[in-house]
Amino acid sequence: MLLLDGRTLSAQIKSEIAQEVKHDFLDKGKPAPHLAAVLVGEDPASQTYVANKEKSCREVGFISSVYRFPADVAEKKLLEVVDFLNNDVEVDGFIVQLPLPRHILEQHIIERVNPLKDVDGFHPVNVGRMMLNLPSFLPATPYGIMTLLERYKIETGGKHVVVLGRSNIVGTPISLLLSRKTKTANATVTLCHSYTPDLKKFSLQADILIVAMGKPEFVTADMVKPEAVVIDVGMHRIPDPDTKSGFRLKGDVKFDQVSRKCAAITPVPGGVGLMTIVSLLLNTLKAAKKEIK
Amino acid sequence: MLLLDGRTLSAQIKSEIAQEVKHDFLDKGKPAPHLAAVLVGEDPASQTYVANKEKSCREVGFISSVYRFPADVAEKKLLEVVDFLNNDVEVDGFIVQLPLPRHILEQHIIERVNPLKDVDGFHPVNVGRMMLNLPSFLPATPYGIMTLLERYKIETGGKHVVVLGRSNIVGTPISLLLSRKTKTANATVTLCHSYTPDLKKFSLQADILIVAMGKPEFVTADMVKPEAVVIDVGMHRIPDPDTKSGFRLKGDVKFDQVSRKCAAITPVPGGVGLMTIVSLLLNTLKAAKKEIK
Repeated sequence: MLLLDGRTLSAQIKSEIAQEVKHDFLDKGKPAPHLAAVLVGEDPASQTYVANKEKSCREVGFISSVYRFPADVAEKKLLEVVDFLNNDVEVDGFIVQLPLPRHILEQHIIERVNPLKDVDGFHPVNVGRMMLNLPSFLPATPYGIMTLLERYKIETGGKHVVVLGRSNIVGTPISLLLSRKTKTANATVTLCHSYTPDLKKFSLQADILIVAMGKPEFVTADMVKPEAVVIDVGMHRIPDPDTKSGFRLKGDVKFDQVSRKCAAITPVPGGVGLMTIVSLLLNTLKAAKKEIK
Repeated sequence: MLLLDGRTLSAQIKSEIAQEVKHDFLDKGKPAPHLAAVLVGEDPASQTYVANKEKSCREVGFISSVYRFPADVAEKKLLEVVDFLNNDVEVDGFIVQLPLPRHILEQHIIERVNPLKDVDGFHPVNVGRMMLNLPSFLPATPYGIMTLLERYKIETGGKHVVVLGRSNIVGTPISLLLSRKTKTANATVTLCHSYTPDLKKFSLQADILIVAMGKPEFVTADMVKPEAVVIDVGMHRIPDPDTKSGFRLKGDVKFDQVSRKCAAITPVPGGVGLMTIVSLLLNTLKAAKKEIK
């Protein structure tokens, strides 16, 4: 069984990015790529994600900035901040950390972001361009999965990929990306979800099984074809009094069982999650290099 | 076997549209919805399509106009025409008939169209909003298939839909539409294409089989599960000296064989093709009513 090691791979890609920042930006007298984040309220998961983003930016030599607002900030004010960042020539890309408080319509904010700075890939223009196989900013988690498959040379052409979960930010876009007519895709893809009556019927057919359901340890060994490749997008804090933190991280896949049966698998933690932040860095690099037009 | 009769259904929907034009527009002193088309060059299929569009507009009481240009028109000129139509308050929606001559980059033209008048649903903003399950103009053929399934009360929730063909205008969008979380979708969808090694393995699993491959009579009875619903998007002119026109229209499905085995099927002609034009009318009606924002 091959461990698809997001820790080692993300470290390697970060070091490649750091070299590119040095050679193509700093050594040429250009400012380093600049990623900004807008953070509203005190949601702990959002705080952690933005802190990790800042740390990753430092590691690769990016400039990083965070714009913080209280949970009761007005939508109008937030739209002004988006406009400000859209127009700030010193900012290459930015994200507005989701979820936002209920009084703010997320779609208003998302659609206000300049698509050329939309390094989260959430603007409908980027989503549409992704479907149309045109250059675009890819959403971070699907982009991370694509990178993982590519770097580990997992063949996808002609394979049957089964995706469990149809969210707008993971399941649906990864199903699109893997079915596109490109060297690194060309898979036959089945998208399953809460209305699929018999998930096992489909998961057992998968050469590559991508699990993004948000259900801790849902996928058991009997649901997986021998020698399948398993990508686990889940991330859950399971209470565990035996650990210092009081919890353990688990994915959507029962790792101990499934890892004994499959050809390759991503661990949780140390798998897809780390690739997500690397994708955000890669998107910011593309924005700074004006690769997406 | 139930014939999914696009001729009768499209006539019925046209009569519904005609009534709406009368009651909600003319009787209230408002101008009828106005659909414009831009036609470049002399491609016979495009000429036919635009002529059918004009005829359908007349049938439902829409205003219709066509802007014709020679095949050597400059891209710049065409972009100006698009800008003109974008700004013309008397035009509710318009299409630029594809394909365009090679010296014009289609994507330049498509992305110049105001998404609020993009009744073909080809602009990336509309494609992205479709994927995100937000209100948008749906591309005409997938929209026509959705309407056909709805009006004939074909249950899709929890069914296995297999789509053969991944084009940007049919296969990929219909696979997205049918997998969305809506009452009229919620299907488990498998998208197959030229890189799928064994199409039959998948087509035989389909409760609903949607064929958009562009290969005349490719799907034979042995590829279809008994009691499946079969939607044939193909349209081919097959030479036939015994007919007055010298050809016969055939789909991607071997109708004589498959119709004996399946529960329901669209004929060619008289199936999906007629629903496509109706979809364009429905989109124009939505544009005139400012339903898409």
